[in-house]
Amino acid sequence: MSNEIKNFFYPKSICVVGASTKEKSIGYELLKTISTFGYQGMILPVNPKAESVLGYKCYKTIDEINDQIDLAIIVVPKQFVEDSIDTLLTKGVKSILLITAGFKEIGKAGEEVENRIVQKIKDAGARMVGPNCMGVINTIEDIKLNATFVAEKPEFGNTGFFSQSGALGAAVLNSLRETHIKFAHFISAGNKADINENDLLKYWQTDDNIKTLTYYLESFVNGEEFIIPFITNEVEKPVLVLKAGKTAGGMKAASSHTGALSSKDKVVDALLNQFGIIRVNDLNEMFNTAKGFENFKSPKGNRIAVITNAGGPAILAVDSLEKENLELAEFTEETKNKLREVVHPEGSVNNPVDLLPGGNAETYKRVNEIVSEDENVDAIISIFVEPVMVQPFDVVEGIYDVKTDKPIIQVDMPLPEFWDTYKRDSKKQMPVFRNPEDPAEVISNMLFYNKSKKKLIEYKDQYESMLKCKVCKKYEFEKGFLTQEQVNEIADDYGIPVIKNKLVKPEALKSLNGEFYPLVIKGISKDVVHKSELNAVKLDIRNKEELLASAEEIEENFTKYDFKVDEFLIQPFIKTKHEILIGGFRDPSFGPIIMFGTGGKYVEVVCDTTIRSAYLCGADIDEMIDTTVIGKILKGVRGEKPIDMDYLKKIILASALMLIENKNISEFDLNPLIVAQDDSIHAVDIRIKWE
Amino acid sequence: MSNEIKNFFYPKSICVVGASTKEKSIGYELLKTISTFGYQGMILPVNPKAESVLGYKCYKTIDEINDQIDLAIIVVPKQFVEDSIDTLLTKGVKSILLITAGFKEIGKAGEEVENRIVQKIKDAGARMVGPNCMGVINTIEDIKLNATFVAEKPEFGNTGFFSQSGALGAAVLNSLRETHIKFAHFISAGNKADINENDLLKYWQTDDNIKTLTYYLESFVNGEEFIIPFITNEVEKPVLVLKAGKTAGGMKAASSHTGALSSKDKVVDALLNQFGIIRVNDLNEMFNTAKGFENFKSPKGNRIAVITNAGGPAILAVDSLEKENLELAEFTEETKNKLREVVHPEGSVNNPVDLLPGGNAETYKRVNEIVSEDENVDAIISIFVEPVMVQPFDVVEGIYDVKTDKPIIQVDMPLPEFWDTYKRDSKKQMPVFRNPEDPAEVISNMLFYNKSKKKLIEYKDQYESMLKCKVCKKYEFEKGFLTQEQVNEIADDYGIPVIKNKLVKPEALKSLNGEFYPLVIKGISKDVVHKSELNAVKLDIRNKEELLASAEEIEENFTKYDFKVDEFLIQPFIKTKHEILIGGFRDPSFGPIIMFGTGGKYVEVVCDTTIRSAYLCGADIDEMIDTTVIGKILKGVRGEKPIDMDYLKKIILASALMLIENKNISEFDLNPLIVAQDDSIHAVDIRIKWE
Repeated sequence: MSNEIKNFFYPKSICVVGASTKEKSIGYELLKTISTFGYQGMILPVNPKAESVLGYKCYKTIDEINDQIDLAIIVVPKQFVEDSIDTLLTKGVKSILLITAGFKEIGKAGEEVENRIVQKIKDAGARMVGPNCMGVINTIEDIKLNATFVAEKPEFGNTGFFSQSGALGAAVLNSLRETHIKFAHFISAGNKADINENDLLKYWQTDDNIKTLTYYLESFVNGEEFIIPFITNEVEKPVLVLKAGKTAGGMKAASSHTGALSSKDKVVDALLNQFGIIRVNDLNEMFNTAKGFENFKSPKGNRIAVITNAGGPAILAVDSLEKENLELAEFTEETKNKLREVVHPEGSVNNPVDLLPGGNAETYKRVNEIVSEDENVDAIISIFVEPVMVQPFDVVEGIYDVKTDKPIIQVDMPLPEFWDTYKRDSKKQMPVFRNPEDPAEVISNMLFYNKSKKKLIEYKDQYESMLKCKVCKKYEFEKGFLTQEQVNEIADDYGIPVIKNKLVKPEALKSLNGEFYPLVIKGISKDVVHKSELNAVKLDIRNKEELLASAEEIEENFTKYDFKVDEFLIQPFIKTKHEILIGGFRDPSFGPIIMFGTGGKYVEVVCDTTIRSAYLCGADIDEMIDTTVIGKILKGVRGEKPIDMDYLKKIILASALMLIENKNISEFDLNPLIVAQDDSIHAVDIRIKWE
Repeated sequence: MSNEIKNFFYPKSICVVGASTKEKSIGYELLKTISTFGYQGMILPVNPKAESVLGYKCYKTIDEINDQIDLAIIVVPKQFVEDSIDTLLTKGVKSILLITAGFKEIGKAGEEVENRIVQKIKDAGARMVGPNCMGVINTIEDIKLNATFVAEKPEFGNTGFFSQSGALGAAVLNSLRETHIKFAHFISAGNKADINENDLLKYWQTDDNIKTLTYYLESFVNGEEFIIPFITNEVEKPVLVLKAGKTAGGMKAASSHTGALSSKDKVVDALLNQFGIIRVNDLNEMFNTAKGFENFKSPKGNRIAVITNAGGPAILAVDSLEKENLELAEFTEETKNKLREVVHPEGSVNNPVDLLPGGNAETYKRVNEIVSEDENVDAIISIFVEPVMVQPFDVVEGIYDVKTDKPIIQVDMPLPEFWDTYKRDSKKQMPVFRNPEDPAEVISNMLFYNKSKKKLIEYKDQYESMLKCKVCKKYEFEKGFLTQEQVNEIADDYGIPVIKNKLVKPEALKSLNGEFYPLVIKGISKDVVHKSELNAVKLDIRNKEELLASAEEIEENFTKYDFKVDEFLIQPFIKTKHEILIGGFRDPSFGPIIMFGTGGKYVEVVCDTTIRSAYLCGADIDEMIDTTVIGKILKGVRGEKPIDMDYLKKIILASALMLIENKNISEFDLNPLIVAQDDSIHAVDIRIKWE
């Protein structure tokens, strides 16, 4: 990778265009922060009126600078931005941090300037962060760059933090002394006019200072581009995403605030989950989990021991285990015997281990040692509520001396003084959490990451074959919903089992011969999509007489609503055992999406569906089946024999392929796909929208 | 109410049995805390060896004390506890706080002593808090009692805080300087051997210093006793419950830690919700909500305005609105016009209002004023992220000067210094939250409380008629599952529509005459409860020949599993449209519980059920219907006409009455209750367990 992005974090020289001598102005505060954090490179301020700013020699114009500029930071008022960029590009500057606001986020006029700037940047082979952003930070000792206007001194940790919102970044920076969040790089991406989450996803893979990636996002610039490196196993580091703008309301706010368009939240949720991207619910969970990845080895399984000096917090921790699908470990007898030698007889040697308020540094350490040696334990949550008689520092510090590969995650509920003492005196500076519920989230996220990573590796070939599907050019259909014949053709090609069917004009119905009864008749009009409201379907018709009567009734119903029956669709009547839905659509950001679940006319009320990227593997299909009610029923409950699950999975896969290979399909659904009393499977109603 | 409970909070004199001169001992630290917090009454320490402790004259024995003892606090080792209590009771002391541990929670021996002590206390007409607890606090200025061993100085607020876990209480006390939690009373209830949550629920109703009740509970001593005062409208104050031990695992921990038995969590959840008791998820939500009730008037509706100086946190707040069923208010044009005069042209005058980082004390105050005057706004969330140029104190303090009846709840994300400044200099000391997601929870809880309170008042008569149901003594059935005849009898009495049915011995089947076909035949054995696994049911039998063949097949199936068909049940065959479940059981703690939802053989997989106390009103029945998928379907979706909902509600009510009036019914279910093609309703399978 070339240096355009690296130079945002590792510049040897920075030019501050718009440096100011006026306190509380951005141009002043930014330079001051750079200076006080101890930037190790060369600082080149530009200000037409000042000789020097904060002791640094000042240049009247950018052109005056003869030194190489690795990174240019622009804080001039917006009317001077474009000129500055022109000059910088002419000088060959390749990395530009544009802090100034007033572009796309304020409307059409701003958007035009922003687009023009981006084009110039691209033409020059340069890269830009911003506009409308808060800056970048690199805490690494030989760089020490805090190019933001929050004058805090962040500490080094192996995390990269990308924030689409400058304010949220600022809030995190404001809180550092209380939250003890640490990171290597911070980037406030603003409008993401050029550099966005996808660039950093790639760049941070190549940077050894970064072990975990954290994102606060309000939108994905291109969701498909974001997930593909995960599918292809090019992402080797855990990625955590706090995605805001979850709801319709949230999306509205996102759009008016940063000019970004949010993807639908269910798609985001499903796809991040499918590809091992950890979606967190809040900042606390994000940075706790980052601390987890940074400081602990991954647990091998989900069997958790809880050690405590008090009941209540332990119970809250146990509650949180079950919420996160973790289990309370069952100790071996050997462990319990060893514990009996240390634990107060009125305490508990079962899990949770209770040392009672007398538990001190020595007993806590020994108990953690014993429990970590138990083969039934994968991770430990050690909780300490500060009582009168025992000081917390030695307890906490001592536990982190236990030699084990298993994570021991600590919660402390001390008097406030503890936090300063710990920060000052702790040699290891390992994380200590505040709430008994925190560690379970962290452990659960680590296990999720491991499991997903394993899946992505195991099913590599399947995933790649889906990604490499060739675009099908066979069909030349007109736009709109496909006709029954077209549906038959494409479904047959992909092996989707369409029920036998025949289209008959109303006037031809009387002369119809040789149809097998019982059958189903449906009225079809090019103007009607959903049929059940119109009573357009009649089932279990046993003879010609019933057929004609039903047809008449359907025509009357249509007339009532001012529609006309163009044709009748005739199918064999199948005795239904189960109704399935398989559907799909093309998400504007994340591409082809597949849906599976309970079908039938109550599908919107029953809400038993699950979605995945159509770039899916066998394990994804299994999971879709296992997480839906209909899937569980089809696999057989209470002694029933399952339906032909392999065949069902083939139909799901075929549907995914059909969607991927035919870019013209914007949406489709098989609803219902019927499982008959004899367990045969038939798609009785297929809608495909062609665009 | 007499003074036995009041004296735990308002004693004029306290005797500390086991006061000690040894630093870090409970007997020393407790007395020190009492002293340093500034207790306004008389302190009477008892210690056989010391002349004085911490400057207080010490008594060798309890008997030596001639003054009246309002409250006795016992901290002696457990072997001396019983004697101390004997002496105190002889002296006529009526309020005893037993801090010492080592009773029920350590097993059988401890339980025996505890039971003996409780009996003595009861016989003497005294009351006891504990054992195994952390003490009590009253922060009211003319009492100032901190009888715990956490030497913090809690501040006064109108909240009562009951903690079943001493440690959790301690953790809260430890954190006070960071969380700014305030309360009037704190009580650590320990083993709840005598005084428990029900006592405080009653007592705090009578105490004007308490406006909101908060509980941390691991179990309910008697759930039915807890909910009845809500049903009868005797509880006039908001009650917040953090109930731990949610899960099976959680319950295990609860039981091993405080010797308490947890109720099943779903019952707890449903019943608290039914009677307007606010169940919170964590300590943060509990105390934030308490601050809400204490400091703000209740919002009239759920239309929320968000005011911010930055996008990100506002989007997180909007996300949290939708999670809590709140809505983003739509401003009037008048409001937007007024806002345009104040808000920066590049900001936003829509909701969320964005003042941009330049928003200062003046604009924030004015914008909050304008928005609070909008008739479409019920409450405001005002968020401030500290930027470089604006100090947070004046912003926050200024907003609380806005004159309005609508709650304005503030979030601040400042540098850490702010919190100390605010605590020191704020005149109003109104709450300021830390996370953009916090206010939505608080508002939602306040709205829930109002809505519930309204329901409890509106349906007072219906609730009371349920509570006053007389025990029915008509039936004298044997224990076990009722026979078909018994089921018919009781169902007929209550108006539950049992389908016509007839029991026939296998040998009598051949001579059966005059049955109407189509019919259903079921094999019945007293040893078999569920039928579908055994293939014991045959449907749609159309003639005698099919009937005999089916009977034979059922008998063969039974034989295969070593069962014997005792009788055949014959019913008309009904074409099923929908399958409903109505069931009920008697919870050991909370009493009679009713269930409604989707019925049929997949009931455990489909999981579409909801429960309520059988002490229910019409609104509860409506809600049961509205919150289930089957309920929505029965009411008619996509143009279908609803079934006879009044009749369905009558059946639910009848089922509740049957359960309440017949104490012998431990559980029952109607599964399925069938809605036929013609919309008639029939219970085709009723099981009732009699105990």
